[in-house]
Amino acid sequence: MQALVWDGVRLRLAVDAPTPTPVEGHAIVQVLLAGICSTDLQILHGYMGFRGVLGHEFVGRVVSGPPEIEGRRVVGEINFACRRCLDCAAGRTRHCPHRTVMGIVGADGAFAERIRVPVANLHVVPDDVDDESAVFVEPLAAAIEASVQTEGYAGGRTLVIGAGKLGLLVAQVLAMRGDRVDVACRSGRARDLVDRLGLSRVTVERPGTGYDLVVEATGDVSALPTALSAARPLGGVVLKSTVSTRHELDLAPLVVNELNLIGSRCGPFEPALAALRSGQIDVRALLDEMRPLSEGIEALESAGRPGALKILMKPGA
Amino acid sequence: MQALVWDGVRLRLAVDAPTPTPVEGHAIVQVLLAGICSTDLQILHGYMGFRGVLGHEFVGRVVSGPPEIEGRRVVGEINFACRRCLDCAAGRTRHCPHRTVMGIVGADGAFAERIRVPVANLHVVPDDVDDESAVFVEPLAAAIEASVQTEGYAGGRTLVIGAGKLGLLVAQVLAMRGDRVDVACRSGRARDLVDRLGLSRVTVERPGTGYDLVVEATGDVSALPTALSAARPLGGVVLKSTVSTRHELDLAPLVVNELNLIGSRCGPFEPALAALRSGQIDVRALLDEMRPLSEGIEALESAGRPGALKILMKPGA
Repeated sequence: MQALVWDGVRLRLAVDAPTPTPVEGHAIVQVLLAGICSTDLQILHGYMGFRGVLGHEFVGRVVSGPPEIEGRRVVGEINFACRRCLDCAAGRTRHCPHRTVMGIVGADGAFAERIRVPVANLHVVPDDVDDESAVFVEPLAAAIEASVQTEGYAGGRTLVIGAGKLGLLVAQVLAMRGDRVDVACRSGRARDLVDRLGLSRVTVERPGTGYDLVVEATGDVSALPTALSAARPLGGVVLKSTVSTRHELDLAPLVVNELNLIGSRCGPFEPALAALRSGQIDVRALLDEMRPLSEGIEALESAGRPGALKILMKPGA
Repeated sequence: MQALVWDGVRLRLAVDAPTPTPVEGHAIVQVLLAGICSTDLQILHGYMGFRGVLGHEFVGRVVSGPPEIEGRRVVGEINFACRRCLDCAAGRTRHCPHRTVMGIVGADGAFAERIRVPVANLHVVPDDVDDESAVFVEPLAAAIEASVQTEGYAGGRTLVIGAGKLGLLVAQVLAMRGDRVDVACRSGRARDLVDRLGLSRVTVERPGTGYDLVVEATGDVSALPTALSAARPLGGVVLKSTVSTRHELDLAPLVVNELNLIGSRCGPFEPALAALRSGQIDVRALLDEMRPLSEGIEALESAGRPGALKILMKPGA
């Protein structure tokens, strides 16, 4: 089958990648659409030392699996947990220390015609959520995680730094729960999009201060010092960016202002599906390009351009 | 009067420091005992650019003030708030942006015979709490703050890194609320003290992993990477150390494990007084030396030695 394979040096469109075969407890899913995430680009710069088929955002159709889901459209949680350890027993399957992670740690990903996923990780997509929306479930769940982790700040003044595809999902999710959200953005295009989504805008250079909650979603934690200084005393700062390098940081504001710095990664899928059904989250506005998987290398190049939003790939097209 | 004055270059025992005079809303307090904190030592290395009389831990007697407290023994909160701004209105007087801080920011401190303190900052010391215990109220309140900020982790497995005077207060406070506390310590003396306090001990080099909550209380945030790796996914890490420099830090564990990094500074005085009355916190064990204020320079030198615990100074002695 076709697949985008990263060997640690080169990204290559394989045409003869081995088609995944059925394994107990797993389903084989035909990928309908896959989305490119900033983490995919970080992997091409060495993040996690991953080797294999890239990609972890997808919507697909079950071609082999338990009868109750065979033929159904599904999305899949990316952390493949052991479901036997203490963390799993405590309900922290997304943090299982023995996990593999689709397209990120030790498990082939979704930039392929077919993918093998544990049945426990799959969620059936309701008929009224189309493929172009469903492919956003994984990043939307990650955005919802920032909301779950900061319930104590709900309804306050919130600043989201970074108007990329993840930042704009986070901003919409937090606005939906009642936060008064400002989005700090730079480029003209991002500004238009923030306006179109009905969100309030501030500049990255002078975002203001006194925010109850600040979310750093620039993709490279460069705005973390800005985030720390924009939060009010005892406020929250969510670090939503995947980071692969060491940073020099002045921790004094964190201690003096008693801030709460919260790392945030993957989130729950069912609230994401529910939010898509409700129509309260506009994911279509974040859609930039759709390309066949055969143009995957170009698609990843496009995704790396400044200001790029979501780029989707369609296998078999 | 006698006072220990820092001019930005030199610490000097002044014998002719101006005695503070009454001001509306303030009391003049005769200092009975003052304690040396690591922050005092940081100030001698440039922290906060402070100039003036050092010191912020004290117990004293009101010599001039409202009749209801005149002659009473008191301790004093160190943040002098404006009580007019939005932060003060929101109850965050310890974080008032216009505040001065006793012996730290723009207000003379307690290493003196007398000190002027806003009446609103004073707490009367119950008769059954003696001076040697009451002088611990300020650092004990700071330890209690770490508990207030981490109620969601109460009763779990907790690691306190650093068996200094603040670490051992934090460890006792968290044990008192039901946490199963391990203290990571280095020196033989600290080990004995941890045992004497009935706390459990681990080594700094291999403190273990999977803690629900980790408190970094080494005084210089050097153990922050250890703290981040000792916490379980979704766990809390409290940064209790005053820090004055930039640090290079790998933030990946924070994001990947979705940790909660909580800056922690000053805390509430009334629970600290109550804890001292209850006898559940042993502060006497942390008492190292008592010197007259006239030997203040030597006292601060002693406090700077590795493994030093609480050193007190007695004005007029």
